[in-house]
Amino acid sequence: MNFASDNIVGASRPVLEALVSANAGAQPAYGGDDATRAVETMLCEIFERDCAVFLVATGTAANALALSALVPPYGLTICHAEAHVIDDECGAPEFFTGGAKLAGVPGVGGKIAPRTLSDWLAARSGHEKEMPARALSISQATEGGLVYDASEIGALCDIAREAGLSVHMDGARFANALVASGLTPAQTTWKLGVDVLSFGATKNGCLAAEAVVFFDPARAEAMRFLRKRSGHTLSKGRLLGAQLQGYLAHDHWLSNARHANAMAARLAQGVVALPGARLGFPCEANEVFPVLPRETVTRLRAAGAMFHPWSARSLSAGERVAPHEMLVRLVTSFATTEQEIEAFLSVARG
Amino acid sequence: MNFASDNIVGASRPVLEALVSANAGAQPAYGGDDATRAVETMLCEIFERDCAVFLVATGTAANALALSALVPPYGLTICHAEAHVIDDECGAPEFFTGGAKLAGVPGVGGKIAPRTLSDWLAARSGHEKEMPARALSISQATEGGLVYDASEIGALCDIAREAGLSVHMDGARFANALVASGLTPAQTTWKLGVDVLSFGATKNGCLAAEAVVFFDPARAEAMRFLRKRSGHTLSKGRLLGAQLQGYLAHDHWLSNARHANAMAARLAQGVVALPGARLGFPCEANEVFPVLPRETVTRLRAAGAMFHPWSARSLSAGERVAPHEMLVRLVTSFATTEQEIEAFLSVARG
Amino acid sequence: MNFASDNIVGASRPVLEALVSANAGAQPAYGGDDATRAVETMLCEIFERDCAVFLVATGTAANALALSALVPPYGLTICHAEAHVIDDECGAPEFFTGGAKLAGVPGVGGKIAPRTLSDWLAARSGHEKEMPARALSISQATEGGLVYDASEIGALCDIAREAGLSVHMDGARFANALVASGLTPAQTTWKLGVDVLSFGATKNGCLAAEAVVFFDPARAEAMRFLRKRSGHTLSKGRLLGAQLQGYLAHDHWLSNARHANAMAARLAQGVVALPGARLGFPCEANEVFPVLPRETVTRLRAAGAMFHPWSARSLSAGERVAPHEMLVRLVTSFATTEQEIEAFLSVARG
Amino acid sequence: MNFASDNIVGASRPVLEALVSANAGAQPAYGGDDATRAVETMLCEIFERDCAVFLVATGTAANALALSALVPPYGLTICHAEAHVIDDECGAPEFFTGGAKLAGVPGVGGKIAPRTLSDWLAARSGHEKEMPARALSISQATEGGLVYDASEIGALCDIAREAGLSVHMDGARFANALVASGLTPAQTTWKLGVDVLSFGATKNGCLAAEAVVFFDPARAEAMRFLRKRSGHTLSKGRLLGAQLQGYLAHDHWLSNARHANAMAARLAQGVVALPGARLGFPCEANEVFPVLPRETVTRLRAAGAMFHPWSARSLSAGERVAPHEMLVRLVTSFATTEQEIEAFLSVARG
Repeated sequence: MNFASDNIVGASRPVLEALVSANAGAQPAYGGDDATRAVETMLCEIFERDCAVFLVATGTAANALALSALVPPYGLTICHAEAHVIDDECGAPEFFTGGAKLAGVPGVGGKIAPRTLSDWLAARSGHEKEMPARALSISQATEGGLVYDASEIGALCDIAREAGLSVHMDGARFANALVASGLTPAQTTWKLGVDVLSFGATKNGCLAAEAVVFFDPARAEAMRFLRKRSGHTLSKGRLLGAQLQGYLAHDHWLSNARHANAMAARLAQGVVALPGARLGFPCEANEVFPVLPRETVTRLRAAGAMFHPWSARSLSAGERVAPHEMLVRLVTSFATTEQEIEAFLSVARG
Repeated sequence: MNFASDNIVGASRPVLEALVSANAGAQPAYGGDDATRAVETMLCEIFERDCAVFLVATGTAANALALSALVPPYGLTICHAEAHVIDDECGAPEFFTGGAKLAGVPGVGGKIAPRTLSDWLAARSGHEKEMPARALSISQATEGGLVYDASEIGALCDIAREAGLSVHMDGARFANALVASGLTPAQTTWKLGVDVLSFGATKNGCLAAEAVVFFDPARAEAMRFLRKRSGHTLSKGRLLGAQLQGYLAHDHWLSNARHANAMAARLAQGVVALPGARLGFPCEANEVFPVLPRETVTRLRAAGAMFHPWSARSLSAGERVAPHEMLVRLVTSFATTEQEIEAFLSVARG
Repeated sequence: MNFASDNIVGASRPVLEALVSANAGAQPAYGGDDATRAVETMLCEIFERDCAVFLVATGTAANALALSALVPPYGLTICHAEAHVIDDECGAPEFFTGGAKLAGVPGVGGKIAPRTLSDWLAARSGHEKEMPARALSISQATEGGLVYDASEIGALCDIAREAGLSVHMDGARFANALVASGLTPAQTTWKLGVDVLSFGATKNGCLAAEAVVFFDPARAEAMRFLRKRSGHTLSKGRLLGAQLQGYLAHDHWLSNARHANAMAARLAQGVVALPGARLGFPCEANEVFPVLPRETVTRLRAAGAMFHPWSARSLSAGERVAPHEMLVRLVTSFATTEQEIEAFLSVARG
Repeated sequence: MNFASDNIVGASRPVLEALVSANAGAQPAYGGDDATRAVETMLCEIFERDCAVFLVATGTAANALALSALVPPYGLTICHAEAHVIDDECGAPEFFTGGAKLAGVPGVGGKIAPRTLSDWLAARSGHEKEMPARALSISQATEGGLVYDASEIGALCDIAREAGLSVHMDGARFANALVASGLTPAQTTWKLGVDVLSFGATKNGCLAAEAVVFFDPARAEAMRFLRKRSGHTLSKGRLLGAQLQGYLAHDHWLSNARHANAMAARLAQGVVALPGARLGFPCEANEVFPVLPRETVTRLRAAGAMFHPWSARSLSAGERVAPHEMLVRLVTSFATTEQEIEAFLSVARG
């Protein structure tokens, strides 16, 4: 009953098998290996266009490198006030950009409303005392487990473009959001105006593999230097290439995401039926955010269930968590089983 | 006949097996997993003292993180003029330290002579216009494939200590140097005054795994933040832990290094017997640096042999490479076979 | 009728005279000149203890250098959400610290309540994903023109100390706050726990001169390098030294501040008597923040009065500015005259 | 008899007078003042084209800001091995650029030969392990007091342009070099291919005033932010503007430089006539680098003469300083008198 995160399991079988089979033989170093090249091609096909692809081992590296290619050291990136980039990366974006800053804006469930963005931009003075805004970073799925729909992303990108901002999408859970949306990868990214995507794979089946995808290769010119100087260019690049090959082949990544989302939906359904429980945010991808009676939480923990409490900052206006309640986060993955969910719900029911 | 580097092969069998077997089951994220913890213990045992250990995926990350923990942004690190940190990491040390600089000093075969260090330090003005020296970084084995002996390391560390410098050892090929020295890991590091070691494993049998080892854990306090903000804290930490577990268990790392060194010795022996050939530096670990007639080089390449030309900057005074000659580097690894060597020599003989 | 800021006038007469008289003759470069040394001594006397003093030309440099000496690149500095360091320095603290971040907390009139600080600290997780808090920066006087009293500063410093935070005071308007408080410089700084003070002088009578004052000289060891590498060590240091000599001698700085405060008090008195006007924050130093009818603002501007609109974010809970009103800032200086104030009020009265 | 540097005196009279007369009255802050605007216009006229001009207080700031606008954090700037930017600024260029590195190349008297530059560039691998070269920085006059002629600058700029490098000129002693060259400011800078000039004024008559001059204003877009975040935007900008107004008006800067150069020529003439003395480099601007018998040095110092020993690294091939000799640097300025020179020579003669 471990719902602490989607990073507590290893790799899914096809990913591990790809890794093992790519181990043999000599290969050019630094990403010149066959597996890495194959993945570059696969991602271009998946996104239906020529892309510049840079593989790295962590989502923090992917996000920070992407932002460092988009904003100057004196620039601002607008993101949600609880975004991973601003809250959970120990200042990696600030480090990689050389001091550029993130400006957090509010929004229910981690989602930035277009109006919030335009109002924020309208309030800027333009004086050199203020760092100028240069990028927008949105998370798909969001920190609250929500999925931006195409019209929301499109509206945000339009406002960003108008204001001269580049658009980054933190897709640590891109696959989960994608299968929830029913759209193609292209329809939910560059066709709407996204410039760079952190294409997450670690949480959805890899051990450590992410891709920074530039939809306009011309904007990626600095990347090979930026990645190398940050220590993120693996000499035996096949480690990353092979994982992603296994991940992408035969739509394995989509199957993994569908499974995780289905498990979350089932868990959400069970949770709302618990006495005294409700959802803090709707369950749209592979995360469930229930408000539970504290006694339920205590009982679950006593039974060995693992999950984290969550900040109530981004609940809808008017929603609040009472003193006898707790907002928690439950995350499902490709490895979550129905049995785990049933066991959890059964304990929760008391 | 690929002698281009020791990073062109995958993982050795025990390493890969450890990785596969650590894949199953749930584990705490961010290095709290069993494999990582086991490795921390193993390294303390190997070095016969309490150490602070930080696993990362690349040697560049290991070196740059180590230096960023030792020198302030306005500090200088003295290293050999052809050291990996100054020449081959695209400025990673400068990036991680926030602008600290490396000062390269000359030395035959990549080795810094104690006298070179003391003379260099004596010439400093102490004026704030000059960046103050704060660390010494030595490579073991060196870029020229040489192995510092204990008295050399001890002398360098003594001079460094006297001048207030911390000592970093870039051990990308630490295992190869160690088995060549016949000493214990402790005898060749902290017992002589080394503060921090980049303990390399990627080149000697892993896919991507290095350990930054602080012999005084108190100096490592900032490291968990420094690693996280550089994107080098893997969420599924077992990827690193498992590789190193397989690498260290049953002295596998030492066997790999002994094999690579033996292959290099054999290759060196064959090479010096070639007509018109000689060694640029003695072969002490797993690299051979012959000066070959250009026609031999051409013949080898035509036959598919892979290797890199090398800079002649660090040859002994008086030694030089004639226009019809070329200094090249041949690197052996755990995977190098006698057949490859024989094939290479056979082509070279013409 | 220029109340736009206290940086729109030149130097006061004794400051300019000191500058002219220090111009003659040869002097050691880089702050070894007589004037700079005299100022160092004067500041130690003024603060009644041994201090390490570093002169620079701007308040932004003073603040950013101070913070870079107190926090590591991965550290957080807590400040008011509208503090100069977070809002008006184009990211200078982020730049000088190598990426350390400022966390803004709310508070009426730019003042941080001790309870706000302790609550904020209590909510930290301690996980390495979060940047650890390492410093508190308070502004005296605040961005809302308020003056912290000794008990408030003491309480904040106590909480900071307990949590391992260093305390920085941005004293861009330190003189104005000091004369308002009726305390000695020591009583309002290090005796309460302040570690480093940006001792402002530019706004209160100099052309460009600030001093970073470390109350514990041991913490200033890096400063001569940090200042030099930021380009803030003047070769002809007398430019800074002489200004501050003229500023500090004969309590000229205190006279200037008393005059500015008296002018502000008079202006405040006149403003509250205006029809439809009130003060957004009490007038405690040399700034007045009235809420004025927009038609009054229009009339004033038409008559050539200069002043800036101000953010209403830090008004007391419940206070608000109606659509037909505007919150503005009026700043007085050593050069403000009663005539200017009368002229302003006369126009404002209609 | 103070020949230690040209930064040991104050401002020349017209500069000081301009400063005093600009002190009165209210002026817009942050460089919007009349004096600063006038200087911007004057520099455009002097350089015969539209320029973007940024005033700062130190040469270190000017150089570091200029480089930070020209090179990315992963880029290399090629300069002479003894250039001020690499040796005397405590790492300011590394700091301002976010970790970009300087590569020092040899050259007699601080001058880079075009062939040295082209050979250096030809040896680059283009691999991402190497930082890519992005700028060339030359000093005019050089650290050895030499003046590049137009054909030398032109040849260097052509090679740089070919290789995609921007060209920065450190003109800390630009005026001295200019009057020595007999060319116009335009003929010796942008007409030859210089992109950005650090236009020095502090050493030649100001107290603290330099201008960063971008000959292509489009390349200066980031500068207002870069300057502000480095704390180099003075709120009372008139301090810088007024000095430079006094400096540039009526060709005062050229008169100052001519005087300093004439004094140096006279000093050089006297020095070569001393027994056992010779010049290390020809005297071309306002610096004299004699090799003196150590006993002469001792006698001069005993008599109170002030000057610095100098590095012999950049002497011509074959030239050397014997153990009983010392290479020293003598700097003259606008304030140097014939009497000082006669007194110095008289002591030197024994």
